[in-house]
Amino acid sequence: MKLQFWFEFASTYSYPAVMRIEKAAAARGVAVEWRPFLLGPLFHAQQGLKDSPFNVYPVKGAYMWRDLERVCEKHGLPFTRPHRFPQNGLNAARITLSLDQSQRGNFVKAVYQANFVHDRDISDPQILHAAARRAGVDPLEIMAALRSEEIKSQLRDETGFAADLGIFGAPTFITPDGEVFWGNDRLEDALDWAVHGTLRPGQTN
Amino acid sequence: MKLQFWFEFASTYSYPAVMRIEKAAAARGVAVEWRPFLLGPLFHAQQGLKDSPFNVYPVKGAYMWRDLERVCEKHGLPFTRPHRFPQNGLNAARITLSLDQSQRGNFVKAVYQANFVHDRDISDPQILHAAARRAGVDPLEIMAALRSEEIKSQLRDETGFAADLGIFGAPTFITPDGEVFWGNDRLEDALDWAVHGTLRPGQTN
Repeated sequence: MKLQFWFEFASTYSYPAVMRIEKAAAARGVAVEWRPFLLGPLFHAQQGLKDSPFNVYPVKGAYMWRDLERVCEKHGLPFTRPHRFPQNGLNAARITLSLDQSQRGNFVKAVYQANFVHDRDISDPQILHAAARRAGVDPLEIMAALRSEEIKSQLRDETGFAADLGIFGAPTFITPDGEVFWGNDRLEDALDWAVHGTLRPGQTN
Repeated sequence: MKLQFWFEFASTYSYPAVMRIEKAAAARGVAVEWRPFLLGPLFHAQQGLKDSPFNVYPVKGAYMWRDLERVCEKHGLPFTRPHRFPQNGLNAARITLSLDQSQRGNFVKAVYQANFVHDRDISDPQILHAAARRAGVDPLEIMAALRSEEIKSQLRDETGFAADLGIFGAPTFITPDGEVFWGNDRLEDALDWAVHGTLRPGQTN
């Protein structure tokens, strides 16, 4: 049983999802497939936006920051509001694509912590280098991903594939039977659906 | 202990919240303050929208309809996708404002069921008349609300007040200490916050 986990490194609500998904998935015997993509091109193509909706619509932004603070507190996750928003997650996404699935979780978590706990610039190769080291990945090997034409076009393909799946935000979870669940709030529902194919497993339908 | 419950009759995710809130609130000893408002003017003022974002951005709309179906199934709520969306909730909102708080729940539920279960036109005074009867409210008395200048201006004031509170969507819950929680997903969190002033009541902060 596998759940596709689509995330964008700039996305705020992806942070609690990234930190929570492994434990929640393991508890249900579900494997996580880490799928980085870029949300910017989708926001532009689908909604004509050139910036995060949280910046374009300040009333939504103000709510999101307070809500995120509460969500993190609820789950016992450290959180510092970053000075830069949204950050450029291009480099981090490329590096992630160059990693095996088994290596991705630790690297991705380290990058989200750099952004949402330590307020670092995650487009900076030095910060990504440090994240790789913390994740037990050989930094020298993966930094090549930043210059790889193959990875570059792979990320473009993944982003196009995300659009084809009906993705318009992050985090998004896709179950084996193709159900789309959007948002950190839907993590448990998506996992339950992956296992049972319904959200009412105890009921006869 | 009281939770303000701001809802718009056209709002899809307000339907499960309307059907769930009384039981969830009673379980925590919280009273519900029913506050109808109009979301259209806020969408226009805050985001420049002249229609529901679910119509303006089809990818979000397609997701919402499927998600709403799943949410309703999860909570055991009947659901039929209405032919009209969004409906005009102006008349229903005016009638609600003319009712005492103790009468509002039953009337509001009857109108949401007319919309999201029976696919009726909730701007139609006959449908509202029937909803009032089902809710045990004297229809003749409250239909006067549709022609009342006082109620008209009261609804305008409430909508302005919603904007001042930072509301940008429905349903929205406001706790006694002023925390804003947006979305049917946040109902339980809002109620817990109303009681404990935190989402981690078991923790010492």
